[in-house]
Amino acid sequence: VFRCITKRARQAQQRRIEGKTAMAHLGLVGVGVMGSALAQNLAEKGHKVSLYDRDLERAAKAAEAAEALLAPGDVKAFVASLPRPRAILVLVPSGKPLDAVIDTLSLLLEPGDLIADLGNSFYQETEARVTACEARGLVYLGMGISGGAEGARHGPAIMAGGSQTAWARVRQPLQDAAASYQGDPCCDWYGPGGAGHFIKMMHNGIEYADMQMIAEAYGILRDGAGLKAAAIGDVFAGWMDGPLNSYLVEIAAEVCRTKDPATGSAMLDIILDTAGQKGTGRWSVIEALHLGAPVSTMAAAVEARNVSAQKPARQAMEQTWGPPKITPLAVDAAALGQALLAAKIIAYDQGFGVLRRASETFDWALDLGAIARGWRAGCIIRSVLLDEISEAFDKGSPDLMSAPAMRPHLNGHVALRRTVGDALGHGLQAPALFAALAAFDGARTGLGTANMIQGLRDRFGAHGFERTDAPGKKVNGPWHS
Amino acid sequence: VFRCITKRARQAQQRRIEGKTAMAHLGLVGVGVMGSALAQNLAEKGHKVSLYDRDLERAAKAAEAAEALLAPGDVKAFVASLPRPRAILVLVPSGKPLDAVIDTLSLLLEPGDLIADLGNSFYQETEARVTACEARGLVYLGMGISGGAEGARHGPAIMAGGSQTAWARVRQPLQDAAASYQGDPCCDWYGPGGAGHFIKMMHNGIEYADMQMIAEAYGILRDGAGLKAAAIGDVFAGWMDGPLNSYLVEIAAEVCRTKDPATGSAMLDIILDTAGQKGTGRWSVIEALHLGAPVSTMAAAVEARNVSAQKPARQAMEQTWGPPKITPLAVDAAALGQALLAAKIIAYDQGFGVLRRASETFDWALDLGAIARGWRAGCIIRSVLLDEISEAFDKGSPDLMSAPAMRPHLNGHVALRRTVGDALGHGLQAPALFAALAAFDGARTGLGTANMIQGLRDRFGAHGFERTDAPGKKVNGPWHS
Repeated sequence: VFRCITKRARQAQQRRIEGKTAMAHLGLVGVGVMGSALAQNLAEKGHKVSLYDRDLERAAKAAEAAEALLAPGDVKAFVASLPRPRAILVLVPSGKPLDAVIDTLSLLLEPGDLIADLGNSFYQETEARVTACEARGLVYLGMGISGGAEGARHGPAIMAGGSQTAWARVRQPLQDAAASYQGDPCCDWYGPGGAGHFIKMMHNGIEYADMQMIAEAYGILRDGAGLKAAAIGDVFAGWMDGPLNSYLVEIAAEVCRTKDPATGSAMLDIILDTAGQKGTGRWSVIEALHLGAPVSTMAAAVEARNVSAQKPARQAMEQTWGPPKITPLAVDAAALGQALLAAKIIAYDQGFGVLRRASETFDWALDLGAIARGWRAGCIIRSVLLDEISEAFDKGSPDLMSAPAMRPHLNGHVALRRTVGDALGHGLQAPALFAALAAFDGARTGLGTANMIQGLRDRFGAHGFERTDAPGKKVNGPWHS
Repeated sequence: VFRCITKRARQAQQRRIEGKTAMAHLGLVGVGVMGSALAQNLAEKGHKVSLYDRDLERAAKAAEAAEALLAPGDVKAFVASLPRPRAILVLVPSGKPLDAVIDTLSLLLEPGDLIADLGNSFYQETEARVTACEARGLVYLGMGISGGAEGARHGPAIMAGGSQTAWARVRQPLQDAAASYQGDPCCDWYGPGGAGHFIKMMHNGIEYADMQMIAEAYGILRDGAGLKAAAIGDVFAGWMDGPLNSYLVEIAAEVCRTKDPATGSAMLDIILDTAGQKGTGRWSVIEALHLGAPVSTMAAAVEARNVSAQKPARQAMEQTWGPPKITPLAVDAAALGQALLAAKIIAYDQGFGVLRRASETFDWALDLGAIARGWRAGCIIRSVLLDEISEAFDKGSPDLMSAPAMRPHLNGHVALRRTVGDALGHGLQAPALFAALAAFDGARTGLGTANMIQGLRDRFGAHGFERTDAPGKKVNGPWHS
């Protein structure tokens, strides 16, 4: 059984209430777009930051942005400039560049000094780096940061993992720099080892599903209801008044309403329908599969991007099979919103379900409510709904699909069923909405059809099955033709 | 562009026509259920086999089954009994037991001797073993074998990978032992390194999708049409007269028709609806994701097994949300068969698509037509359809969804659309059929909705997009609210 750990969350809040600590003096390696933005942010909040970059001039230039930013020079001078025990934030590309920085620093640092990786590292590599650094007497934190350059400058969400004691040494400056939701900083430590980077990875997986479902709603309005981009923008903007209120819906409205200066057309109508990806969505799905946790909505989103990249093949197939039906479809914007909301709950249920499974598997004791609270501001999936989600977990729900607080939203499964039915009747693409409905129906069906799977497996491979009248014991069937 | 390599297939056939080579004398390590069955099979086909097992008595006992089976004794005697250059088949559990056998043998073998792993090894480990054995002067083959113990005894399908020259040394005895389809052995070499085990893995991934779709059809007939198990068996048996003719549909009919001797009920109604899995389905999906190849039908099948294992949670959810609708659903068995066939083509399109992508990525030059031919008999997914599929690839189709020969079957997408519509209208579980339809609609839509994804990504992260009027160049939008 999953334990809901609200106690730790309450303690963390307590520590925050105890009041600000003195100004910190941190080191920061890697003064790219993200690094310099975060440094300026920290300086603005009253902290001193020594900067270092392989490109010494870049560090010197970045230091000009604020008085509290220093560029001591080479890496030795940089390390020497920091008060002991040192705390150094690293914002360089993950993999070899990060390992090179760690190797260089570890020659100069002293026992107890702290390195915090704020890059997009794969959580298993973070685990290895924690171990390697601890063997050298150093402490290591792996942190995910979300919100892009704008977020880093004015308030990102930060998800930290690694040594909890070490976290206490950088908590205050980072929480000062982070986004906050009603005064509550969206920046916390969530678990040991690679937990922070795992959580950031799942944030991105959920982001994939969120974006794909928004794109599917857009497609239903464009190809089903026949609306122009600007009118679709109005639908999205209307949803901002309700439980769909979120950064992604907000910018979806903006994206719909923006005109292309060159042609005067809607910008959306000029953008090629071929999506890129950087891999964290795919990682999320792969790790969920390793953990055996349902992840179909995210998988559909990753796959939709893969398929989108095959435009010539899609066009050839359309020649053969014809386009989707072009008969108009009556779309009720409010009902579509309800469908989207229900699908979103199901996608988030899967995302948090992966975190729960990871927590059990890796013994991380993750506080799902705290993680949801940390996503309420600063990050790409920030939304009003995450506040409700955090409450649902705090109240002890092990998941979202069964959470009483989510029931009113999940009542939208009726609208989702109608929307998916309309979409498939018209041949409109809605794989993530399909997957959400299928996940709901699979999860709420007491008597499934896996008895057939077990029958087949026993028939061809003598794998055995359990009898309903004698569970817990594998037996074989008396199969005959 | 994918090259269709029919030339190699023709050469292989040529070699087979050249006539049987002399009786072979092979070694075989691991005399479990599979190993002793394969040894008896080889002996029956006129080949001599020296047996070795850690348990010497087991080897001695297995050798009693036929005159051509020898149990020379310990591993030294075993190796000494074989003509040089030696060829040894290994049927032990993959991982550490296999590596232990390889280590032991390599101390005794001489340069040029051959080890063939017929276990269920992960293809990347096979690649590593090929390299390690070559470094020791040995040759190594990784082979997938399908058909269970019955298949091993009377004719399995064998998918070999590794050194093609080495393959020539064991080809004849293995093809003699293998299943054949109209005289054509279902046993061949398909590519270097881990190709054989990769192909076996994808065979199992396809098997997962096949079984899940059969289970979904069963559910629609049971919970939608309200049919009893025996009547469902009649529907499946009826499908055996058409293009769905396959081993899995055949045994599904048997499974439906079998009665439980203890209670007199249909056996299926006594089996707990909680499916097990051994991991190869999950591996397939994970590897497909790494390769960026669509795999949604298999993913749905893996996920359905995961969800099936959560029976108490499903029962609790049903309390909250109610069971699926129990209003009767008029199900036309012929139309359901057409739907299942169309969905099967889409699942196989994905499976072969993963093989094509693997072939391109790993430079394996796989002959998809030959692989389909090799699956026509002996293995679990054997079917009449695979004969048509092999012809489609031989005629140069890069995939199945666009293959002219598959068009009549894919016309079933109309029936599939109706079936899925019915299922979702009644809240019946059909995630793999859903996924198949969604994959079809995604693949045949010329103008997708990924422009919205790209718009969002550019708005929040300045990731850039291509313009339809200036493709090939990344630009940024002039986003405004």
